[in-house]
Amino acid sequence: MREAGSVRENLHALFSPRTLALIGATNNLGKWGGMILANVLTNGYKGKVFPVNPRDAEVMGMRAYRKVTEIPDAVDLACIVTPAETVPDLLLDCARKGIRTVLVISSDFAETGPEGRKRELALLELAGRTGIRIVGPNSMGIFSAPMSLVCMMALIEPLRGDISFISQSGNIGVQMLEWGRGLKAGFRYFVSSGNEADLSCRDYLKYFGEDPECRSVMIYLESLKHGEGWLEVARAVSREKPVVVFKGGKGEAGQRAAASHSAALAGAVPIFDASFRQSGLIQARTTEAFIDCARSLARLPLPGGDRVGIITRGGGWGVITTDACEEQGLVVPPLHAGTVEALDRLLPAYWSRGNPVDLVAVTNIRIYRECIEILMKDPNIDGVIALGALPGRVMSFLSRPSLKERVGLKDEHVRAYESGAQSAGQEVLEGIIHLMKTLKKPVVLVGGGQKSPVYEAQMEEAGLNIYPTPERAVRVMARLMEYARYRRRLEAEPMK
Amino acid sequence: MREAGSVRENLHALFSPRTLALIGATNNLGKWGGMILANVLTNGYKGKVFPVNPRDAEVMGMRAYRKVTEIPDAVDLACIVTPAETVPDLLLDCARKGIRTVLVISSDFAETGPEGRKRELALLELAGRTGIRIVGPNSMGIFSAPMSLVCMMALIEPLRGDISFISQSGNIGVQMLEWGRGLKAGFRYFVSSGNEADLSCRDYLKYFGEDPECRSVMIYLESLKHGEGWLEVARAVSREKPVVVFKGGKGEAGQRAAASHSAALAGAVPIFDASFRQSGLIQARTTEAFIDCARSLARLPLPGGDRVGIITRGGGWGVITTDACEEQGLVVPPLHAGTVEALDRLLPAYWSRGNPVDLVAVTNIRIYRECIEILMKDPNIDGVIALGALPGRVMSFLSRPSLKERVGLKDEHVRAYESGAQSAGQEVLEGIIHLMKTLKKPVVLVGGGQKSPVYEAQMEEAGLNIYPTPERAVRVMARLMEYARYRRRLEAEPMK
Repeated sequence: MREAGSVRENLHALFSPRTLALIGATNNLGKWGGMILANVLTNGYKGKVFPVNPRDAEVMGMRAYRKVTEIPDAVDLACIVTPAETVPDLLLDCARKGIRTVLVISSDFAETGPEGRKRELALLELAGRTGIRIVGPNSMGIFSAPMSLVCMMALIEPLRGDISFISQSGNIGVQMLEWGRGLKAGFRYFVSSGNEADLSCRDYLKYFGEDPECRSVMIYLESLKHGEGWLEVARAVSREKPVVVFKGGKGEAGQRAAASHSAALAGAVPIFDASFRQSGLIQARTTEAFIDCARSLARLPLPGGDRVGIITRGGGWGVITTDACEEQGLVVPPLHAGTVEALDRLLPAYWSRGNPVDLVAVTNIRIYRECIEILMKDPNIDGVIALGALPGRVMSFLSRPSLKERVGLKDEHVRAYESGAQSAGQEVLEGIIHLMKTLKKPVVLVGGGQKSPVYEAQMEEAGLNIYPTPERAVRVMARLMEYARYRRRLEAEPMK
Repeated sequence: MREAGSVRENLHALFSPRTLALIGATNNLGKWGGMILANVLTNGYKGKVFPVNPRDAEVMGMRAYRKVTEIPDAVDLACIVTPAETVPDLLLDCARKGIRTVLVISSDFAETGPEGRKRELALLELAGRTGIRIVGPNSMGIFSAPMSLVCMMALIEPLRGDISFISQSGNIGVQMLEWGRGLKAGFRYFVSSGNEADLSCRDYLKYFGEDPECRSVMIYLESLKHGEGWLEVARAVSREKPVVVFKGGKGEAGQRAAASHSAALAGAVPIFDASFRQSGLIQARTTEAFIDCARSLARLPLPGGDRVGIITRGGGWGVITTDACEEQGLVVPPLHAGTVEALDRLLPAYWSRGNPVDLVAVTNIRIYRECIEILMKDPNIDGVIALGALPGRVMSFLSRPSLKERVGLKDEHVRAYESGAQSAGQEVLEGIIHLMKTLKKPVVLVGGGQKSPVYEAQMEEAGLNIYPTPERAVRVMARLMEYARYRRRLEAEPMK
């Protein structure tokens, strides 16, 4: 195990390389060296890429070099995609060229058995001797939003944002980047950390912690290769920004599976759980919560307690959301007397006077806007889960020819209704975003509804996200409240 | 409480009315009577609808009647949408007209407090006296696929299929019908059972149980109004087809919330849990699992045990899926020696020789096809969860102009690749469907991928569904294995 303190420059070279040598680059898209180069080229890498190939003088229309030592420019980062047995010599070439950071995509190291383990140890020894720091081996690559660099084995175009992500499984990493596109959750840096022969999870986490542009960190963790310093780094980062961990290999069979794929024994679960709790890491229990939390926790205001107010336009959904809150250890308290009084003035006489606040058959979205404000201001409430905040898809029905004729609807009626619903929906969203800022209470939305695309950016910026099921919204609120609890505890303690 | 035996005709009138009187029909789409009529008309109801309105002679271009007694035809079903206090007189009109089944949408009965409770008791008494059976009050309406009848308060067009659905929350019902559209899960009958003053969950369940066209039943249940006979009915139905229950009001606050919205105390959870287990009802623990299970359980072969084989193209996803299986009480056993041997001939030397079967970097979809067959034939395996079975979306990358030029790709190459991937994907799906039938082992798929629309119907028919997360797929498999266990136990017992 080598020193942790000196890797800052290596990780700068990894995530912001002005020049990249791709060793094993090829025209053949059926090979990883072809797919990675295609990825680098089509995603608009802002630096300069040098294909290295001992046979072809030209690769994808670019001059190729037989060895890295022939490249005229200084090389910040080398990426090796060739078979395992060729890697040591190539690493020596890199050392000769003065390259200090090498991303090893090549597999067939410790993850494949005793022979591979020997190869990995030899590689590590060589790296130590040459002063090179290694990412991988058996990595699927990296993504860097600032450099527009997708140096990865999977054809993917991640959305840019401010989540940074370390994954001990390349495929899980790729899938999360892909899900992020659908969720509008953007990433800043991603690293598939592979076998972590040298650089490890801890190093990447420390780097992301010190990066002011990174607002939250995701870690898919199966095992801790280098336990030293882990807790200190985790504590230091989670003091500044949320770190969301998904632990793979929880059960017995899962640990066996993990052992065979990332060359490490997945550690005992209770020890991990305790270490996450002690260091303020937020543990996601489902793959969806993993990305949901990374996306929402960084932006929502940290609530002052665990008491949730629920507002809904359907009794059953209020019941389910309440159940889900209780299951997650959150409190759904009765409303403050002043809240009941204020809502009495807006809702029909028979409203339930309780939490969840069920708007029953009130369809006026402006009343919804007023009710959520009253609920957010309730002194007993620390955060709000709001269902059905946006007007539904009525339009497709109103504009059916058969209906238009029958009720004498004109196109302008339909358009007027549509734009009315749109602006009412925007008003609700604007109101909530404003209240979140002033009251410092988080809101999580549930349900579909019409959302104006022009409004998406403001919602994303405020962390006001819509989840399709109450369970997902509740999990986000629960993890947010857990993180807020940790941060409050820190503040109560004297700085150590 | 009235007799349960005689309701068959009433429920036939409810779900297959040749004639429907809509009392409270109006031109005004802002009123429920307008929205329901619009729903009935635009969804192509196969019967005849008679608007009833004391003031307007014409509603939505149709002749309206002042009273049901003025309608010339016999009326199978009346639907009342007018204020609570008008309902008793209208019910008497229905009795005079000879109508025996009335759907009461009107609210402000027992769910709103003591006054409403009195009104509900009076209504029930009146129904008993006139021989009318009542659905509701406080129902959101019904859907019938065979009649193309959407007699509901929400603008919705459910997909037709063979799930029948009873919901003690109208809004949850509507949302599930809506989700069904996205999932391609179709419904046969739906009833929002409202306050269940008269006809109750048990009656609807019995009717759906006796309907050979209905292949699975969903119940959103907060409370049992009429407990008598419930267990017997549940047992009789779950012997024939899966009945999936979602229980609302599990925690203390959730029970309070349920009490205020459906006019009933949600019962003690342990009692419900035990009754579900005893009667073979399958309890869904998430809203997604609710519809996922109703959709998949009816069609997948019932597995002979609880042992799951996992096949994946990424180690991390195998780990997560294994963890999720163990969490759900399923077994992920080692592979049979013959399976390892057979896979040895197809996979690279360093494959893990374990379950999950990780195809590592094998991208050939035809090898996937062979591997899943070997895994399905493993005598230690009762069902398979298959991740990444379909080829991914490579096309959008291959057809990028910048890439096409650089690697000299021609449009015909791209098209050839695309159709190759398509047909390979179809081959995998066809193979799995065939194996499910012959081996009687279920398969649940995880992941996106390219799916030919022409193939969707065959997949849906076979119950071969794709879920976006491993957790969802595992929950479906877990509930299926639970149901299969119950059915095996039944078969082992002598018929009672």
